[in-house]
Amino acid sequence: MTTTSERRPPKLTAKGRATRERIVSAAADLIYEHGVHNTNDEKIRAIAGVSGSQMTRHFPTKESLVRAVLQWQAEQIVTDPRIPEGRLDSLAALRLWADTFVAAREALHGGCTFGSLAAELIKGQPSHRSAIADGFERWQELFLRGLTAMRERGELRAEADPAALTHLLAAAFQGGMLLDQAAGNTTPLRDALHGALDYVESFTPQP
Amino acid sequence: MTTTSERRPPKLTAKGRATRERIVSAAADLIYEHGVHNTNDEKIRAIAGVSGSQMTRHFPTKESLVRAVLQWQAEQIVTDPRIPEGRLDSLAALRLWADTFVAAREALHGGCTFGSLAAELIKGQPSHRSAIADGFERWQELFLRGLTAMRERGELRAEADPAALTHLLAAAFQGGMLLDQAAGNTTPLRDALHGALDYVESFTPQP
Repeated sequence: MTTTSERRPPKLTAKGRATRERIVSAAADLIYEHGVHNTNDEKIRAIAGVSGSQMTRHFPTKESLVRAVLQWQAEQIVTDPRIPEGRLDSLAALRLWADTFVAAREALHGGCTFGSLAAELIKGQPSHRSAIADGFERWQELFLRGLTAMRERGELRAEADPAALTHLLAAAFQGGMLLDQAAGNTTPLRDALHGALDYVESFTPQP
Repeated sequence: MTTTSERRPPKLTAKGRATRERIVSAAADLIYEHGVHNTNDEKIRAIAGVSGSQMTRHFPTKESLVRAVLQWQAEQIVTDPRIPEGRLDSLAALRLWADTFVAAREALHGGCTFGSLAAELIKGQPSHRSAIADGFERWQELFLRGLTAMRERGELRAEADPAALTHLLAAAFQGGMLLDQAAGNTTPLRDALHGALDYVESFTPQP
């Protein structure tokens, strides 16, 4: 499938790459704040400080820009410095991850940077489906890798299913983020993550 | 706060009520299928079989119609016939609920009828925030009531926290529905709900 973004010139100069990055970053911030449908070219250009023709050269359509934002947000969540070296391979690391995100109150502000965008787009724009699937998969890899390592080291019993536990943790996070935004407090996310982690902990070997 | 829908005439004739119901039902179906932003008046009118003036009389703005759809979907989820008498007050009932929704594959089609709409609207339209909060709260009441009854009957130990377990179940459901849509299969929802229910079950009294 040839997509609009794949038709852009493969080689950008350093300046071109910087301009493109500035546009995507501005678009990501605005979309996170207001949603895709309340974000338009003019607002993005004003924040990124680029002209209409620069904007069009990099992103001929809104769809191509939104796809770039999806990819950018996916990259941000898997390289989030709050998950040091992307390692979630101990109960302590998983609990720190949960507490960090509950405390950050992103849930109240605008939810998961990637998940909230995915939820807004998934139904209306089938063309974004694969970028959404890829992003969630890359993110869930962090849990899968960590839980698998824990089982291999004997920190989880053999009957623990890292893939199933990954789905529980990921769903608790995404659902909790949505419920928090609705409720206006971080109790749903906190309860959901703590419950999911207590369940993971139930697979530690009995002394 | 005076909202558009509150300004509509308080008394409708039976025919007026039927027309209004037809519009809301058609809008709900289209929005579930395509999302709010890809659903317009013309499509709704065609399906509901109403004129432009009928539409405007009942719903002067798209916002007022979307609010009515939110309320309608919230009503549907708390009166869903797949939750007989709204009772989720045993592990068997909770497991049947989970299996029913996994098997229904709504997760693949368009996610939770209420939650997917909430996720699409929550950021862009602060005016819908309270309808979204109310809907989630009414839905979670089903779990809270059931889990509280189970604890009162001694089917869950005293240290089980029905409110916290409710948040885990609700988040696992909403997050699982989103992850399923992205992945194109029902494994994430199934794993998340089964994990959450196994955790609930861990609070049953030891023999």
